[in-house]
Amino acid sequence: MTAALRVGVAGLGTVGGGVLQLLSAHGELIASRCGRPVAITAVSARDRHKPRPTDVTGLRWYDDAVALAGDPEIDVVIELIGGADGVAKAVVERAIAAGHHVITANKALLAHHGTALARAAEAAGVALGYEAAVAGGIPVIKTLREGLAGNEISRIYGILNGTCNYILSTMRDSGREFGEVLAEAQTLGYAEADPGFDVDGIDTAHKLAILSALTFGCEVDFAGVHVEGIREISALDIAYAEELGFRIKLLGIASRVTGGVEQRVYPCMVPREAPIAAVEGVFNAVVAEGDFVGTIMTEGRGAGAGPTASAVAADLIDIARGIILPTFAVPADRLARTPSLPIERHVGSQYVRLMVVDRPGVIADVAAALRDQQISVEAMLQRGRAPGETVPVVITTHETEGAAMDRALRRIAALEAVVEPPRRIRIEAL
Amino acid sequence: MTAALRVGVAGLGTVGGGVLQLLSAHGELIASRCGRPVAITAVSARDRHKPRPTDVTGLRWYDDAVALAGDPEIDVVIELIGGADGVAKAVVERAIAAGHHVITANKALLAHHGTALARAAEAAGVALGYEAAVAGGIPVIKTLREGLAGNEISRIYGILNGTCNYILSTMRDSGREFGEVLAEAQTLGYAEADPGFDVDGIDTAHKLAILSALTFGCEVDFAGVHVEGIREISALDIAYAEELGFRIKLLGIASRVTGGVEQRVYPCMVPREAPIAAVEGVFNAVVAEGDFVGTIMTEGRGAGAGPTASAVAADLIDIARGIILPTFAVPADRLARTPSLPIERHVGSQYVRLMVVDRPGVIADVAAALRDQQISVEAMLQRGRAPGETVPVVITTHETEGAAMDRALRRIAALEAVVEPPRRIRIEAL
Repeated sequence: MTAALRVGVAGLGTVGGGVLQLLSAHGELIASRCGRPVAITAVSARDRHKPRPTDVTGLRWYDDAVALAGDPEIDVVIELIGGADGVAKAVVERAIAAGHHVITANKALLAHHGTALARAAEAAGVALGYEAAVAGGIPVIKTLREGLAGNEISRIYGILNGTCNYILSTMRDSGREFGEVLAEAQTLGYAEADPGFDVDGIDTAHKLAILSALTFGCEVDFAGVHVEGIREISALDIAYAEELGFRIKLLGIASRVTGGVEQRVYPCMVPREAPIAAVEGVFNAVVAEGDFVGTIMTEGRGAGAGPTASAVAADLIDIARGIILPTFAVPADRLARTPSLPIERHVGSQYVRLMVVDRPGVIADVAAALRDQQISVEAMLQRGRAPGETVPVVITTHETEGAAMDRALRRIAALEAVVEPPRRIRIEAL
Repeated sequence: MTAALRVGVAGLGTVGGGVLQLLSAHGELIASRCGRPVAITAVSARDRHKPRPTDVTGLRWYDDAVALAGDPEIDVVIELIGGADGVAKAVVERAIAAGHHVITANKALLAHHGTALARAAEAAGVALGYEAAVAGGIPVIKTLREGLAGNEISRIYGILNGTCNYILSTMRDSGREFGEVLAEAQTLGYAEADPGFDVDGIDTAHKLAILSALTFGCEVDFAGVHVEGIREISALDIAYAEELGFRIKLLGIASRVTGGVEQRVYPCMVPREAPIAAVEGVFNAVVAEGDFVGTIMTEGRGAGAGPTASAVAADLIDIARGIILPTFAVPADRLARTPSLPIERHVGSQYVRLMVVDRPGVIADVAAALRDQQISVEAMLQRGRAPGETVPVVITTHETEGAAMDRALRRIAALEAVVEPPRRIRIEAL
């Protein structure tokens, strides 16, 4: 048996604690699977004396995570501090400079600096593992980089944020509005006190930018991701979605199209019979569409100490076994600069809900605005009659370019009888 | 760029044709992902002159697949002939002896000879790839061996045979009986002319034996798999399953229990809200339950040229990248001889349907037979009344040991009023 793989862990929060517990519980199993032991030898956190689920007194302690990253007596640095810049970035850069392999759960860091870090890691001949950064326990990075590597993937999409999926599932089940369900999720610990990172789609966008680079062999382009969150989703739209045979999910979707890639994060309507529609609560799921394999979907827990530790352990085991691959499947200096196309160019069906004063001529005005943009209406429905009152009108369209709908919606919003900004939700053909 | 990986393909049927097409379509992509080209240089099949989707005239031709396996000018042999013994086995053994890596889609071969072949491959320092042998395009082998390698898996189960899943899905949708749906599946090409291998559960059992060895680190024990097929499933039982909130699926289930492992293949009732209940038609799915990751399910196409070629390509790319791991995750000489426990020891809920003459006292006799075996009845239902006529009686039980139910069913079957052999279907808690 070869020498132990020596590991330093920077950050001992929930995930760090989970990693320590996993390695403590499964040391023998992992040694038998790797042909060598994997041992944590150094740790760093803010508070040395905080009680922790696993005893760290026998390990080298660093108050300064960057100093840990430079420790010459370790082989791998696991960065679990988080954040796109600051200490986390310094830790990863220092570790690579010291010739250490790096494992990180930090999607923000990779979304913003993934290409540069991949180049640095490859130049140093070290691994940059990030299985834990996307979809928690689901081994999506390995699946894309290795398991489906014989395919050209045309589209990858997923439910990548458990908080949003929990909120949307609960809104549907209970008929309640976003604000109320968010407050409950915060009480239950499913949502942060400052929920914007999750509910505004940013976390999903970080993960999508990473998946997109890996899937399409292009540089990470977080700025090219179109991002919308779920704050505007109402109980009324969820009810209409059900009536129309859809469910509303916050998806991250990356697809290869003529002239570039599309990277989009938004709440959208998916057919109720699509497998991803059945993924509920805090679960995540990733779907890949390959030219030979067809459609593959994996579902599992996207967050939490256990699933994230499982993903970190997979990266550690790869390194212990000597499996070191280019970060984004092809060498970083060969990643393409593929343009991310603007959302206005995206072609798809759309759902629009208006609140209008129920009086003669309104529907005709709305229909004219759509017609003038060559938008083909699939269905238009106004439930009930209430002359002079405000009523909802719902429109679904056939495939149309985003820009055309933007123009139509501006004209519709300006109609005197339209009393609220139109709500638009894309319909995804899955 | 390093030298090309030279590949010989033994067997040019549907899957072989798919592999040739994939490598022809994606040669450049694969070279960029591997850092070296992957080139088919030799092929073998029964009929040299049969028209094929990909031109093979430039490749070295072998009438004798075993001779191809010994070709010193290749690095990898892909065995796509099939069968547990005979030529396929000779090809794999010859390839290993010649120091060639081996990739096979042959589950029967591995189910019967997996441990010995793994030992031989590891002694020769070559890979034995079999991603294509289980669940087609789903990268389940890689997921278990690498992606979830930090976990102890307590149970793995799946829909591993698309033919059976298609038949059961269609029976439910249409209300028709097994024989009729099987005949239609044969016409559509979803079932073989000789369907026994699929519908009697043997194919699923082959795959389960492989998954079980890989998951639990034990020798492949195909003889230890309890196997039942789907021929006895009736439209009536499918209708009752729906009424009780279940779906009937042919599952392969392997679990670690006190004293050994359980390996079971049978049609069973799964809760309708379980994710695997929604996997329909020819699709396959595999669910793993790990102590850190929780439950992970992957769904995809389990057969066909494209998905199987995708799995073969993943193994090829691993080899080209230098990723060579022990066949069943730990070295073959460290695989445990874990006993497979008999089905009579399995504890679980059960569904029983009787056809009884509707007259006073029958239910009491049935209930007494169950009571005398300490079997706790969850529900017993007789729909409608038809004095003197034959009517179905359905019983569901709480958890009970298989042997106790066997004894109860023998006594029930002997009752004069019970006019058909009792039908028993296990209920799985998923």
